[in-house]
Amino acid sequence: MKIVTKSEILTVLRQFDPLLDVESGFVDYSKGLACIPPVSELVLEKGEVHIKCGYLKAGVHYVIKVASGFYGNSVLGLPSSNGLMMLFSTETGEAKCLLQDEGILTDHRTAIAGAIVAKYFAPAVVSAIGVVGTGIQARLQVKRVSQVTGCKKIIVWGRSTEAAERFRRSMQVEGYNVELIEHLESLAGKSNLIITTTPSSRPLLSQNMIQAGTLIIAIGSDTPEKQELDTDILVNATRIIVDSKKQSLTRGEVSRALRASAIGEHQVFELGAEIAKGRRPTMATETTVVDLTGLAVQDLKIAEFVLNRIN
Amino acid sequence: MKIVTKSEILTVLRQFDPLLDVESGFVDYSKGLACIPPVSELVLEKGEVHIKCGYLKAGVHYVIKVASGFYGNSVLGLPSSNGLMMLFSTETGEAKCLLQDEGILTDHRTAIAGAIVAKYFAPAVVSAIGVVGTGIQARLQVKRVSQVTGCKKIIVWGRSTEAAERFRRSMQVEGYNVELIEHLESLAGKSNLIITTTPSSRPLLSQNMIQAGTLIIAIGSDTPEKQELDTDILVNATRIIVDSKKQSLTRGEVSRALRASAIGEHQVFELGAEIAKGRRPTMATETTVVDLTGLAVQDLKIAEFVLNRIN
Repeated sequence: MKIVTKSEILTVLRQFDPLLDVESGFVDYSKGLACIPPVSELVLEKGEVHIKCGYLKAGVHYVIKVASGFYGNSVLGLPSSNGLMMLFSTETGEAKCLLQDEGILTDHRTAIAGAIVAKYFAPAVVSAIGVVGTGIQARLQVKRVSQVTGCKKIIVWGRSTEAAERFRRSMQVEGYNVELIEHLESLAGKSNLIITTTPSSRPLLSQNMIQAGTLIIAIGSDTPEKQELDTDILVNATRIIVDSKKQSLTRGEVSRALRASAIGEHQVFELGAEIAKGRRPTMATETTVVDLTGLAVQDLKIAEFVLNRIN
Repeated sequence: MKIVTKSEILTVLRQFDPLLDVESGFVDYSKGLACIPPVSELVLEKGEVHIKCGYLKAGVHYVIKVASGFYGNSVLGLPSSNGLMMLFSTETGEAKCLLQDEGILTDHRTAIAGAIVAKYFAPAVVSAIGVVGTGIQARLQVKRVSQVTGCKKIIVWGRSTEAAERFRRSMQVEGYNVELIEHLESLAGKSNLIITTTPSSRPLLSQNMIQAGTLIIAIGSDTPEKQELDTDILVNATRIIVDSKKQSLTRGEVSRALRASAIGEHQVFELGAEIAKGRRPTMATETTVVDLTGLAVQDLKIAEFVLNRIN
């Protein structure tokens, strides 16, 4: 079994971009070419662990991905997220590769999903990118979505003003024009592309804050409990897109709205199927919500991408 | 992360016996001290993969175990079973150890479960150990159960006479007195401790074959579909024991009998709880069926055992 270290992975990610591979994963998934069992979850006293696995029917590997969040780690000077990915042969079951990514491949494939969403569904002109949250995912999303949209104007809100100020300073150094705001109303009023990246379990944004014509990329909620968007936003959206219709029945913003019968399943479209239709102009008044809960096919694609670049 | 090779694992297993550790795992499990989510399953064209995970509430590690069976591997000169185990910190989520066991730790912890069952529930005098199946699990079970019971008389039945003959010869060399029989009736007539180890999905043994006073250890069936024992055997058993009452609702011999309403949940007892009561004399006419579908707590215990002996 090949063992790949975090620093080798970072080197690959600095040189090459897995975006097109992950994008093709979403398309294959929506064509029914992937087998993905339900996510396995371990809830511990100090953290939670998600185990995702799956394969593409025509593929040579199955993936097992472990991603954990231990929210007290920062006190110990450790990052809260951790994890690894493994590839096994779909022909013989043999372990082929361990990627000791410590969670960064999950961070990257998630940020890439945001970039893919922006590539297909961003407003024609993005006035500013609003980002809710100041962690690693907020940073990666801003970088990737900015690259796709060309917008360097960032509005940021964080629960901790200190963390938000750190975010502002470091992103400023990297060439972004970052405005830190205190109230989410102002964030939504100034941005027509909003990315939510917190582990909140109470809605942070509500319909009355949102401008018509906004794209909302909802990243934070990936369990039945977590929630960043008031259900009203989904009820009033022009379109609702998820990475997996099946997974959205039990996880993420959409699952809540479905459980409350605020929206119907027929209103929910799948990312891979929408991508397959190709890019089309976005209407100025169209509000789109894209709810991402994370798919094993993203893990499979980014793991294979790194393995192929290292071999 | 510490990486432990298969040969290091084999060295540890030759020197030390994890039986008492696995036994305490069953007891802790039945005391409600373990958190074990449902088994995750990948069904591929050429094989199947089970992913088990879990932890003990007072423990320092959570385990993720991958075990696969690819039944066409023998044509390629590869063993059909494969897999690995990983230990992560329950405090921080950090990966602590990868055990590249290629499936042997699953083989051993399963055989150890058989030995634990024999230790507590074998007839006072074992006339012969009957074993159904001739693969690696059949061999390991015979060795371990023979050690516990002191019985070296083995009756073996296999679907392939060639494989059964190979089993007979190699076990004979290791000092066992092995009789190969053609019909399962004779196996059950000559043995009062029977171990079933095949991936059969049709019953191989039925009630009319079984002598009163027999202990049956059912290893092979660990999914809703697999079956080695006719339901009549469960209906007529003096007692039925499973490794996990929860898992037996959906997996193994007992799940079939429960689904068919042939037995009731109140008739099913849990191994760890029975062990905790201590050994007691077995009545000569008492027929016991123990149905094992495999628990993550066994994986956790054997993985920690190996790690502690290597450190």
